[in-house]
Parts: sequence; structure tokens; C-alpha cells
Amino acid sequence: MAHALTRFFAPRSVAFIGATEDLGKFGGRCMRQLIDFGYGGAIYPINPKRDQVFGQRCYPSLAALPEAPDHVGIVLPGPAVVGALVECGGRGVPFATVFSAGFGEQGTEAGRAAQAQLVATARAHGIRFMGPNCNGLINFTDSFALTSTGAITGGALRPAGDVAVVSQSGGAGQVNTMWRAQEAGLGISVQVSCGNDADLDLLDYVEFAVEHPQTKVVLVLAERIASGARLRQVAARAAARRKPIVMIKFGRTEAGSRAAASHTGAITGADAVFEAAARQLGLLRVEDCPELYEAAMLLRQGRHPAGTGVAALSISGGNLVLLAETGAGLGLHFPGYTAETTAKLQPLLPGFTGTANPTDLSAGAIGAKDLFGQATRLIRDDPGVDTMVPVLTIAPAADIRATCALAAESAKPMPVLWSGKCSDDAGITPAALVAAGHAVYRDPLPCLRAVALAARHAAFLRRFAEPAAPRPAGMDQARAATLLRAERFTEVEARALLACYGLHGPAEALVADAAAAQRAAAGMGGAVALKVASPDLPHKTEAGAVKLGLLGEAAVAAGYAEVLANARAYRPDARLEGVLVQEMVTGGQEMLLGITQDATFGPVLAVGFGGILVEVLKDVAFRLPPVSPAEAEAMLRELRLFPLLQGVRGAPASDLPALVAAICRFSWLAADLGEAPFEVEVNPLIVLPQGRGVRVVDALVVRRGQSVIGAD
Amino acid sequence: MAHALTRFFAPRSVAFIGATEDLGKFGGRCMRQLIDFGYGGAIYPINPKRDQVFGQRCYPSLAALPEAPDHVGIVLPGPAVVGALVECGGRGVPFATVFSAGFGEQGTEAGRAAQAQLVATARAHGIRFMGPNCNGLINFTDSFALTSTGAITGGALRPAGDVAVVSQSGGAGQVNTMWRAQEAGLGISVQVSCGNDADLDLLDYVEFAVEHPQTKVVLVLAERIASGARLRQVAARAAARRKPIVMIKFGRTEAGSRAAASHTGAITGADAVFEAAARQLGLLRVEDCPELYEAAMLLRQGRHPAGTGVAALSISGGNLVLLAETGAGLGLHFPGYTAETTAKLQPLLPGFTGTANPTDLSAGAIGAKDLFGQATRLIRDDPGVDTMVPVLTIAPAADIRATCALAAESAKPMPVLWSGKCSDDAGITPAALVAAGHAVYRDPLPCLRAVALAARHAAFLRRFAEPAAPRPAGMDQARAATLLRAERFTEVEARALLACYGLHGPAEALVADAAAAQRAAAGMGGAVALKVASPDLPHKTEAGAVKLGLLGEAAVAAGYAEVLANARAYRPDARLEGVLVQEMVTGGQEMLLGITQDATFGPVLAVGFGGILVEVLKDVAFRLPPVSPAEAEAMLRELRLFPLLQGVRGAPASDLPALVAAICRFSWLAADLGEAPFEVEVNPLIVLPQGRGVRVVDALVVRRGQSVIGAD
Repeated sequence: MAHALTRFFAPRSVAFIGATEDLGKFGGRCMRQLIDFGYGGAIYPINPKRDQVFGQRCYPSLAALPEAPDHVGIVLPGPAVVGALVECGGRGVPFATVFSAGFGEQGTEAGRAAQAQLVATARAHGIRFMGPNCNGLINFTDSFALTSTGAITGGALRPAGDVAVVSQSGGAGQVNTMWRAQEAGLGISVQVSCGNDADLDLLDYVEFAVEHPQTKVVLVLAERIASGARLRQVAARAAARRKPIVMIKFGRTEAGSRAAASHTGAITGADAVFEAAARQLGLLRVEDCPELYEAAMLLRQGRHPAGTGVAALSISGGNLVLLAETGAGLGLHFPGYTAETTAKLQPLLPGFTGTANPTDLSAGAIGAKDLFGQATRLIRDDPGVDTMVPVLTIAPAADIRATCALAAESAKPMPVLWSGKCSDDAGITPAALVAAGHAVYRDPLPCLRAVALAARHAAFLRRFAEPAAPRPAGMDQARAATLLRAERFTEVEARALLACYGLHGPAEALVADAAAAQRAAAGMGGAVALKVASPDLPHKTEAGAVKLGLLGEAAVAAGYAEVLANARAYRPDARLEGVLVQEMVTGGQEMLLGITQDATFGPVLAVGFGGILVEVLKDVAFRLPPVSPAEAEAMLRELRLFPLLQGVRGAPASDLPALVAAICRFSWLAADLGEAPFEVEVNPLIVLPQGRGVRVVDALVVRRGQSVIGAD
Repeated sequence: MAHALTRFFAPRSVAFIGATEDLGKFGGRCMRQLIDFGYGGAIYPINPKRDQVFGQRCYPSLAALPEAPDHVGIVLPGPAVVGALVECGGRGVPFATVFSAGFGEQGTEAGRAAQAQLVATARAHGIRFMGPNCNGLINFTDSFALTSTGAITGGALRPAGDVAVVSQSGGAGQVNTMWRAQEAGLGISVQVSCGNDADLDLLDYVEFAVEHPQTKVVLVLAERIASGARLRQVAARAAARRKPIVMIKFGRTEAGSRAAASHTGAITGADAVFEAAARQLGLLRVEDCPELYEAAMLLRQGRHPAGTGVAALSISGGNLVLLAETGAGLGLHFPGYTAETTAKLQPLLPGFTGTANPTDLSAGAIGAKDLFGQATRLIRDDPGVDTMVPVLTIAPAADIRATCALAAESAKPMPVLWSGKCSDDAGITPAALVAAGHAVYRDPLPCLRAVALAARHAAFLRRFAEPAAPRPAGMDQARAATLLRAERFTEVEARALLACYGLHGPAEALVADAAAAQRAAAGMGGAVALKVASPDLPHKTEAGAVKLGLLGEAAVAAGYAEVLANARAYRPDARLEGVLVQEMVTGGQEMLLGITQDATFGPVLAVGFGGILVEVLKDVAFRLPPVSPAEAEAMLRELRLFPLLQGVRGAPASDLPALVAAICRFSWLAADLGEAPFEVEVNPLIVLPQGRGVRVVDALVVRRGQSVIGAD
């Protein structure tokens, strides 16, 4: 079945309201591109003042057209756009692109109101539209361009390819990314610059690209993600199709967020949350435009490295040092070769060369016949090598061709690092090789960055193929749902809510005699506190009705007698309901479990160390809920202070399995919150030494925006 | 006066031992380059089997030459090199370059011995040499090339320029850096690929480049720094000449260190130490080769930004978001404009444009006559703007030329970010503009990275111009020097050494009566401990001869009587020397001060938080000693846990001035260590609340390698 946006991207006919021949104007440039780009469908310029535009018959209005166009471009001044949409509605047009500015991006009430009016008009007339404040789209696959960008003017048309580019921005998407990718040898399938996203939004185009048969990699520049839930869906589609999405998401820094907000009026959630969510959803986030297309060079080959093991081979030792250094910083490793590989490799290599990885053939190997190719094959086939990187500096055409041919036939990913030039054929360039389908990099960093992304994507796809972790047993969802109907939570209600998910405070028991107190204390293991339970003793400590730190049978019995006697002496008429025996939680590691409400994703799980350090270090891991035990443990291992849980300087190791189980259960509370706008903070959750479990010591449930957990 | 290496880089005549016409051989390629590069001096090929090499008269030996050449290249098999050096010695040759491999880089005893023999031979004959295992040098300024690299073959010779490239590696230095810099439009002055650095080393060539009049920026790729002291000297020369050194120093990661060690046998100090030292010495450290030459594009203009304030102007909002985001990550900021600038700017800008920085002209400004130039000038002249970045995407030649002309005449740094192409003149490329002296970048990240480096360099030069902080008063250097003659240190001696630098433990006083004890305790402020001083009471606590936590006159008097009575009762014949009143140090922040012995730099100052966190977080700042108060405070602010010193969650702020003073004093101990191979660790140094100073609680002085402070 065709995607809902098929006719948007590949209309059978297109009209353009605001057509002109003046290339100084937006409408003139768009018309020129539309014609020059080789579009095969009917083009209908609309302009009541003209009969022709660039040789095409011009119409006074949509009503005058011989058919309803599939797509209408609109470049009228802002206030006239609503009228044009009404006209589209009257003519039964399904899709429009509104280039005009002067809407939400102004950041004014008037701008937002004008944009809302566009949306209301389109909805009323069953029209879906892109923009406003956008620069259109280019479909290289079907030769359709509705855009003003100079990136497709002058010079031969670029061939269609397998990389899609979707952005809100025009310049960064169409020039810094699309045009530069083409310059580097990549072919583009479809490109969209969607502006303010008032109706159709970025994720609609990303979804189209994910479903687009000719597209193998989707590159995204996002100033704003309208819906975290929708992003999850689109990411899951991409994972199912094994299509990588590589993404710049603005808002890493506060300055970036501000600039994005003033560009298209975007409001974003916390960046730390987005970063965690992106990793969880398999989105490959990068920082600058070249990283987008450099990643695509390798990813579009669809070879999935089995791990992070890399091997490299070169006559340039310096390049190998650069690779080893860079790889370690990117989480890649260079495994030693097996004895079998080493034995086969040794006889091939010149005198002073070792068989370490990376493998330095040294300059002594220059000119040795096919030594490089033979060694490359041997090393590539080593079982510890997941990605093979042959390295060239300045080389003759025959060597470059042979290396690329070897890379092309390889089942394992084999990006070629080629820092120099071809010594005997100026026509062989990195861009020409990329255009022929090879992944050729000019520097170690972009090369290994792409390798690391490919390894990350492959690991994600393996995880994605596993069945989802089931909901842990023993949760009282019905009671939780009832509790979540509350307007606000007392501490008692907060504890009750957590108890529904199997998260409990210190053990306690209400007893009526000393023997029962002794039995209860023995069951709790360590020291206990005793408190007289009475509605008439609000100040128990003052009354002497509390004893702390009682350890052993005798102390508990004596304490029991003492607190009761004190209570009776303090207020003889107090009603006594018994004595509360409470486990004393001492030692252990203080952790924080939180649920924060993110502007993009809704409830988000947060895990960190509790106490003063969480404020100073901001050492918090985030995930979209629910999480599996493996993900819960991964969250803990992300924390800089993780070694504290393993026991440092003779401190006992903490009960990690119990903590992991608690995080999973807590994550289901987050997942079950649904639309309930609550934030939850368990701080501290005390993690006792191995085998002794975790205890909720303090818990808070508040409405969104009142929590103390910051994600920034 | 000419630099000592002038004739090495620009010999009047050169001989080449191992000359051949076989381009498959190293000696053939080097000879071909030497001739083709346009060298104006006499060339003497040496090969007893030939009469001519490439049309040059060939000689059987150096002895047969009509004159002693200034520089001799040697490409013989390893074992024959010593003989060639002896021959050089006999002929009075001052300089040689040994290309041959098979020495220290093998990592074997035999290789190291062979290399040592080369050095001994050269020393015996008064020869200085480069290599072995190197790829020679290229002097574009004087048209002299003694190297095999293919980077200077094929195609027109590149013009000489103002950027020097010095590396141990051949490929990474000559291809990834030099050739690629040329491809990007930069001109090179001199280039060296120095290999194993057995005699002359990397820093000798760097020093030459620093003193070289035609060189404006020195790019360095270092696998190893032979001497930290020498690096300090060379860095100081570069600072005095205001010449930036941009450097890749391998060994950031363990994998990188291992690869470097196997490449040229390098052994490096700790990377965290190098990183800190580089910043202190004004060396601009980067990670990948393109960062080297991209930095040079801006730095060679010699304009020093007054601060980190950046402004940018574009019609591409997306590029501005990228810039804002990237800049924040690099420590740059985009200040708002002054009211005056805003007032002048407002009337220029089209309808929907604001005057925020970065300034988005939006697509509405396309085609508006000189609007871009006028706005650029206005913004550049804003007093808060230290660096101005005009941003172009796809633009006509006239606009590009106008922007570059404006940049060229500007006193403030003005790199041009140009992500796209010229719409009407294919001859206008980024490389062509760079070749004409402009700093033109294709992406926001390299552009702002260069801006950040320029800002860092300018700030360093301002610091460098300040007088050095004097040695703090009141240090007993004479006594310290005596103590440092020891073989090993007891804790008492360690404390005595620290006391020479004004670093003391808790206050104490030996008193003979209760009144004196009360006076002493009052002087110490808080609670005190009392201990009977007696050579006959080794177990004072058992004897009851110790009382802790005494606060107030009465408690001190009673305690005094009690400890004495207990001591007398415990051992009536004990000799009593009095009672020691000791300040009790409670609360405060635990810090660590350390002196570690680095393989490159010798004694290095380390400052971190004490206790368990230093192990888990590795949150330690390093500096070469001594440090000024400003540097000491900067060290503290580098620590992630720094906010703890300011007081978090109601905890009192620590005595920062006392801590800063203690670090400075301690740094002079490090500076005074000289060749004494001691490592020192004060852990903890307790920093009391404001106004109450610091106390040395535990101190250790051990011989190198026994300390617990790791710099990795």
C-alpha cells in the first residue's frame, strides 16, 4: 500500500500560487527549479496578472485549472495564505506547501494566531500542508522539486540516490547536508525542508522516508520533535525495516535551544532525556552536518558489524596511531589476531613489521605485489575483527581500485580510509568512489565515527529483535490506578502507590507484647526502633515513647517496657494501640529513583545517586519506561559513581540485583502513569549490602513541574 | 643570528648516500624529489656502482666530493648506516638525515643498541642527524626537499606559505596534514617527518619553525615529547614571538599510547598531565589532522580576539542554530548587542527579523543590496563582539568577494563560514579564498573550533605578558633542601618538609599546667584533645592519658587533671613531660594535594578532592609547578566537585583563600624538588569553613613510583 504522502512527494500534477518569472523573488526561483528539474507531470502556474510563466501556460486561479492538482505550492504574502488554502479546499486539492513566512516563527501572539488559522482552515477543507516558513521538497527519485534552493541550480542535475534528508531548516538541510553530501559523492532520494511544521510535521516526512523503497538511510536535522510517542513509532518502523536514522537534534546547549526557538518557535524537552531516548530508540545522534552524510556512506551498505572489534592495515604508522587513539575514544577496540591469522600473516610481512593490530606494513611494503590485498583479506577474516579498515595515503590507481573492489565484495563492513590522493589518475577521487557505492573516508575520525555508529546500530537491531521484557509479577495495577486519580499525594499515599509496584520502606510490625516485639525484631535482622502507637501522642520523642537502635532480645524487651512506661507517665489517658517495631536502615548506598515529565516524551525514568552528589555531579541516567533488567543495569553503569555500588576501599558491594529489580518495577509505574501528570521521586532509596535488598526511605509524588529532579 | 639548524633546512649542497634511479626504491624516489623540487644548491648522488643518477654526476663516496656537503641523506640498509656516519665525520659533514629503518622502532634490545650506536658515532664525529626511520624534510621557503613522499610529486609545485608542519610520522604529517592543508588552500613553509628522534628531536625542529621568519603557525604531531623542560622553553619562545603552536599529541587513550610506542618506540607520560601542561604552556592541542590546518587558517592572520564573544549573521537560520549550539559547547558565547548597535541595525533588517545574536536575516534578505555587508560591519563593531562570523550558503561571486574583502580589512578576527558554493563562478572555491589569505570554513564546528583556539591563544598571550607570581614569603628552603637529601621519609619528616612551606597540621602546644592548657585551647578556637606527653606511656589511650573533644575552660581544666591522674595511676614511675593540647579538626572538606613524578615533565602538581571520591571520579587537576593564586583557583574550578567547596545544601563554604594559598605554597615544594625523585601526597588536607584555614592531616613522601596518586 502506498504511503499517505506518496502524492505529496510525487504528485501527478502541481500548481504554484504566486508564480512569477522574477528570479529575485521566491516564486520565480521555485518555478524555475520546478521546470528545470525535469518534472514529468503537469505544471500549473497561478497568477492572475500573467498568461505565461517560463513558457508554461499561467492560470488566474485554481478554479480555472483543467484538473485538481495533487500538490499546490503557495508563496503569497502571509495574510493571503488562508485564502489560498480555502481555494485549494474548493478545488479538492489534497496537499499544499506554504513557503510564506510571518507565522509561528515570529514568536508573537499574532504569529501563533495566524498559524493556528492556517491549520484550522486546512483541517476544515481536508488539506494536509507543509510549512509555513519552509523551503519545500526535492524528490530526486521521481524528479520533482518544489523549492527555491540554489543547491539544485547551475551544473548537471545530481543523480538520484539512497539517502533521504529531512529538516525543518532550509540552509542547514539543503546546503550543509544535501548539497555537501552530493559533493562528497552520495546520491539523495528525497529531501524536505519543512519549516514550522504547523500541520504535517518532520516525523511524517521521516516516516515517508523510512517507508520509501529507494531510501536506505534517513538523515534528520530536528530543531523540534512534536511528539515523543510518534517518534517511538517511527523509530520502531525504521528498526523493523533495518533502516538507520541519523539525526542532529538541536538543543544540546541552552544557547542552541534558544536559537532553535527563535528560528521556528520550537520548544524542546530536556536534552539529557532526548539523548537517552535516542539511544534507546536506535536513533543515531550526531552533532554536525558532515557527520550525517559521512555516517550514511557506510550505513547505506547495510552491513552490520557483529561487535566493536576493528582492524586496520597501512604503510602509514602515523595513521594507525591516529586510528587506535580515535577508536578507543569512540568505544571501539583493536583486538589482537588469532594464532591462525598471525601464522598466515607473518610470512607475508616485510622484515621489521609486527602482526599487532593495527598492522603497520611500514614503507618497506611499498610496491610489493598484492601484499596489501592479501594481508587485508587475512585480517578481515579473523573472527575477532568485525570491521576492517584498509588505510591508503598516496597510492596508484591500481591499488586504490583493488582495495575498493575487495571492500565491495566483503561481507563485513570495510570502510576505506584514504587520506591522500591518487598518484597516477586525477579522476580517481574519494567522491568518485563514494558515487560508485564505496565508503571512503579522508580522515580517521569520520571513518571510525561511522564505524562506531554502524556498530551501535547493529547492536540496537540485535536488541530490537529480542522479545520485550514482560511486566514483573505481583503488581497491584488496579489499586495504583485508583490512587492515581488523586489530585495530590500525601507521603502515606505516595508510599502506598510505590507499594503497588513492590517497592517498600523499612520493615515494620505493630505488636502488643514484648515477646512479639522480640520476634518481629529478630525477623528484621539488624537493629530496630520501637515507637508507641497512639493517636494521642503526637510528639513521641518528647514523650520518651521512641527508642532507637535496639539490637538483641534483651534490649528489645527492655525498650518495649521503657517506651510504654514513658508513654503512660507522659500522658496517662493516652489510648495505646500497641508498639511499632521498625527496622533501622543504617549504612547502604543512597540512590534516587525518579519519574520526570518531559515536554516531548511525557513520563521519563531517572536513576542516580542520592544525597548531595546528585546536585553537584548531575550524575543521572534517563530512559523511556518501562525498562528491562538489562537496561536498568545499563543505566546504573552509565553513572560515574557506579563503582560505589560495587564497593570501594573495602566497603561492601551493594545488592545490585535488588536495585535492578526495583528500577524495573518503578519503571512500570512510570509507564502506567499515562496521562496522569505526576512526577515521582524516591530519594533516598537505600541499597543495602548484597542479599539484603533495597528500602524506600523517602518518597514524593507531585504534579508536573514541582519535582526537584532536573534533567539538565 | 641564524638558527643552529639553518644549514640543515637550507643546505648549500647536499649528498645522498644510496642514490639510485629505481623509483620502486626509497633512494630513487628521494633523488627524484630532490631534483624536481627545484633545489638550487649542488646535489651529489653517492653510489659506487653508478656514474650518473637522473643526469647528476654520481660519486663513489663522500671522500670523492669536491666539497663537504652541508647535509647528507642516508638510505642504506640499517647495519650500514654507522659506516656512512663515520664517512660523514671524516668529510666534516655537519648534518645528516637517516631514512633507514631497523632501529629503536623495533622495540627490541638489538634495535635500541643499534640506535644508540648511531648516536654515539654521530656525537663522536660532531654530526647532528635526523631519524632514523624518518621520511625527511621539505623546505618550501628555500625549495629544498629531502624526502620520498608522494605528496610533492605529480602536478605543479605548491607555493611556499606560512604554516610549518613537524611530525615524527611520515604519512600523518606529510599526507593527512601537509598535503591536505595545501589542498585546502594553505601554503607550507617547512615540513619535517623526523622518525625515531635519536639525536635531533621533534622539539629542535619545532624551535626552528618558531624562529623561522616566514612561519606564522607551527603545526605539530607528536607521538613523544623527549623533554618536558625543553618543551617549556620552546613554548616560551613561541609565546614571546606570539606564534601559535597547534599540536596533536598522541597518547590520549591507552590504545593510542600503545600504537605510538610500537610505531617509533615512544614512551609518554600521563595524558592528563600533558593536557594540563599544554594548556599552561599555551600549546593548542587538537585531536585530528584537519583540526591542525583548520586552526592555522585563522591563527596565521595574527588577530587576537579580546574574549569569547562571537556574533554571526546569515540568511540561513539553521546555520545560526548550529553555530549557537556548537559555540556553547566550545566555551564561546553570543552576547546580545548594545542598544546603540540594535538601534542602528533595526532599520536595515527586513520585516520579520529580530536583532538577536546570532542574527537571522532570513531568506527575505536575499538580493537586498549590501544589506549583508552593512549589517556585518555594524555587528562587528559592537563592543561585546570579539569575533565576527559572516555565514554564506549559496551565494553569487560578488557577495562572496565583498564578504571576504570586509573580513580582510577587519581588525577583529572574522572567519567566514561558507557551507555551500558560488552560484555564478565555479572558480571561486573555499580553497582559492584560503590561498588568498582568507579564513574560510565549510562547517560551523571547524569554524568555531578555530575561533575558540584563537580566543584561548589570545588569553594565553595576555597571561604570558603578566609578571610571574613571586615565591610566597616565609618558606624555609634551606631546611627543605637538607630534608630532601634523605633516602626516605618518615611521617614526622614529611610533616617537617611541608612545614618548611608553611603547611601545617592541627595546632598543638605542650603545656605544664591547667591554666596554660586553657589558654592554648582558647587560642585554638574549637574542641581540643589532651594527651600526656611521656616516653614511658606508649599506649596512652589504654592508660587513660588521652581525652578527646574537650570544649570550654572547665572541660579543659577537668580533663587536664584527669589525664595526669590516670597516667600516674597507670604507671607511677612514668616520666611526665607535660600535656599536649591538640586542636581537634572536625568537619571541613577533605582535599588531596599531590606531587607526582611524570616521565616527561618531572614533578607535577595534583589537586583533587580527598577520600573515596578521588578514586571513583578521578577528579584531579594537574599543573606544572609553581602556580600563581589565579592558577591554583583555576585548578579548583576545574574539579567537578568544586561546588562542594562553595557549600551545598546549607553546608558552610570552605576557606577558599587558605586553600589557594596552600596550593601555591605546595607547588613551590614541587618546583624545589628538582632532581629529587620524590612523590608527595597530602591526603587529606582538611579545608575548614571560611576564615578557619586548612590543616594537613596526613602526609606521605615516597620515592617515585610508590605514590597512590594516578594521573590516568
